[in-house]
Amino acid sequence: MIPVAEALERILSALHPTPTETVSLPEGWGRVLARPVIARVTQPPADVSAMDGYALRAADAAVGARLRVIGSAPAGHPFDGTVGPGEAVRIFTGGAVPAGADAILLQEDATAGDGFVSPTEASRQGRHIRRAGLDFAAGSAVLSPGRRLTARDIGLAAAANHPWLQVHRRPRIGILATGDEIALPGDPIPPGGIVSSNAHALAALVRASGGEPLVLPIAADDRDAIAEAATAATRCDLLLTTGGASVGEHDLVQSALGPQGFSLDFWKIAMRPGKPLIWGDLRGTPMLGLPGNPVSALVCAVIFLIPALRRLSGLPAGPVGAGTALLGRDMPANDRRQDYVRAELSRGPDGALTATPLPVQDSSMLASLARAGALVVRAPHAPAAPAGTPVEIVEFSSIGV
Amino acid sequence: MIPVAEALERILSALHPTPTETVSLPEGWGRVLARPVIARVTQPPADVSAMDGYALRAADAAVGARLRVIGSAPAGHPFDGTVGPGEAVRIFTGGAVPAGADAILLQEDATAGDGFVSPTEASRQGRHIRRAGLDFAAGSAVLSPGRRLTARDIGLAAAANHPWLQVHRRPRIGILATGDEIALPGDPIPPGGIVSSNAHALAALVRASGGEPLVLPIAADDRDAIAEAATAATRCDLLLTTGGASVGEHDLVQSALGPQGFSLDFWKIAMRPGKPLIWGDLRGTPMLGLPGNPVSALVCAVIFLIPALRRLSGLPAGPVGAGTALLGRDMPANDRRQDYVRAELSRGPDGALTATPLPVQDSSMLASLARAGALVVRAPHAPAAPAGTPVEIVEFSSIGV
Repeated sequence: MIPVAEALERILSALHPTPTETVSLPEGWGRVLARPVIARVTQPPADVSAMDGYALRAADAAVGARLRVIGSAPAGHPFDGTVGPGEAVRIFTGGAVPAGADAILLQEDATAGDGFVSPTEASRQGRHIRRAGLDFAAGSAVLSPGRRLTARDIGLAAAANHPWLQVHRRPRIGILATGDEIALPGDPIPPGGIVSSNAHALAALVRASGGEPLVLPIAADDRDAIAEAATAATRCDLLLTTGGASVGEHDLVQSALGPQGFSLDFWKIAMRPGKPLIWGDLRGTPMLGLPGNPVSALVCAVIFLIPALRRLSGLPAGPVGAGTALLGRDMPANDRRQDYVRAELSRGPDGALTATPLPVQDSSMLASLARAGALVVRAPHAPAAPAGTPVEIVEFSSIGV
Repeated sequence: MIPVAEALERILSALHPTPTETVSLPEGWGRVLARPVIARVTQPPADVSAMDGYALRAADAAVGARLRVIGSAPAGHPFDGTVGPGEAVRIFTGGAVPAGADAILLQEDATAGDGFVSPTEASRQGRHIRRAGLDFAAGSAVLSPGRRLTARDIGLAAAANHPWLQVHRRPRIGILATGDEIALPGDPIPPGGIVSSNAHALAALVRASGGEPLVLPIAADDRDAIAEAATAATRCDLLLTTGGASVGEHDLVQSALGPQGFSLDFWKIAMRPGKPLIWGDLRGTPMLGLPGNPVSALVCAVIFLIPALRRLSGLPAGPVGAGTALLGRDMPANDRRQDYVRAELSRGPDGALTATPLPVQDSSMLASLARAGALVVRAPHAPAAPAGTPVEIVEFSSIGV
């Protein structure tokens, strides 16, 4: 059994970011930028007014002065002339400050009429003027590679005049559920069988992490079926299997794939749930074999697959982001396996986050997993922890799961 | 000017959840459930083994006893007979516990061979048996309406044998940018003009909140163009405009839409950035008019559009989720407008979250908005706050923006 941290390191060190593709700006949302976005324009392109009012010379803007309004400069319609002494130009937010003017008189600080305007408050040089390049200058990098593009980033790339973006291709993840006993929802259920939940839960998790799932037909617990299905998926960036990872006679994934060129790195991790986890390489395609129990499969996916998807996506990758909460009930000392305990989250009146472990932790129980807000992480050999102890948690909402 | 909370209440009270549609299970991820998911099967369907080992009578499981192995029960292949005294059945995780047996002997607690098995540890009644219905029973509601379906929920709906789900239709949001001075990225930029960023930033925000954006062609600052574009969008669940909301002569949205049957609810909010914000109804379609400045538009979208999208989506809706951080620098007293101040987030060595307001807050500056991690919320007339004061924040990552 190897520790969780070592297993994760070995997984991440075997993976590389996907190649780059070109997508249109609107498709760029949520994708990982692969090349810097260099501004192609300066923003604002010239000195512009930040307010509605009058462009004038600050020296002329004494209270009670009478200035002749010689033109108008709405946004997008620059005034061509020059503002001379005793003159003003009507201007609107975003309008270019005309030559000669060096201040903006707010319209609420002026009385206007009959082709003239008169300040009721003084103005000063540079007031209410946005300088050219205040936001960014042409040639500067406004977005750096290796970030997942937000709505704000899309706005910034648009403003920098980029209709196309270079992003990493979505990692393509083949998902293979194995087992004689499982049927797809709505399909006839074999005697003694159950409905398959892992493949579609994992597909949703892959999509939530920016990947593209490829759900393969269920493979029976039979060497040929598993081998055939798995080799069909070797064009993926990563092959995920569920089931068949344990030590029983009916756990076939390893033995079925060996003759197909599967090379094992490790398959036992000191964690709970999820000890049997396969990591290896199937003829050049990295392969992660998750346990068959639904809770074990999803917890292992959170701990190993999400970081793997981040690495494949071109994002900084490491352990999934952890937070802190106070224990809502006493916990016993831990044994030598790292424990991930389903817990409900609540916030006290003082804003403190409390994680209360659910009483039954059986790894087949999906309903309690769906209800849980977080996993409480218990290190190997952690001592008993009374209620109120701060503990490390993995909050599901923070990782989009 | 009306307060932010009142404006939000008036917006939410005018909106209703979209109707329901049927989607396949994999499409259900991220959608808002509209009808309960009632389990169609019991899970586990029968008492099953939680481990690999031997099913037997607990009374027989004394250390050193010699039990005859009469058959095998892998998952999906139930053993048809009955386990009698002195007998055992080889069993695997998920296999049905055969009639007669009431305990599971772990394989690591047994020595086996020659058709017999002998316990090296005692077992007790019910040990390592998952009872039928431990996870859920047929007929029970495993998922309730009004929640956005996570990967865990999709797994649970699958296990409950649902290939289809009833969800709310994605809210369709028409997005209309107005202005003579703006051009789409890559298109020729008019003299004195700038590249349009609002429409695509807002479209990304709509998608991030589970909506379906419909980006309309840019409308020139001209009554006919605005009226035509806006009425084209009356089949949407909500029409969003940007620009043309202020008081200047060139702010045309209200005057252009009046003759088209636009009925105004309010248009001035005591907030910064974003005072001019239009809310009303265009012949039955709710209409939100955002300011034209990119930062104002996005901040107003965070504060008003995200809650509106939640209401339209069938989710519980209220003010956008707020957190707390410590101020990273002194802030002056606030005036009568609620202030949303872009800030960088950082975590100290003690884990405390600090929000440091960016020095320049001009509402045209998209680059600083993209870099910011949060908005610091300053209530009207808030007193001066020294560095270290706890303040309310809206964290962008927590709302997917």
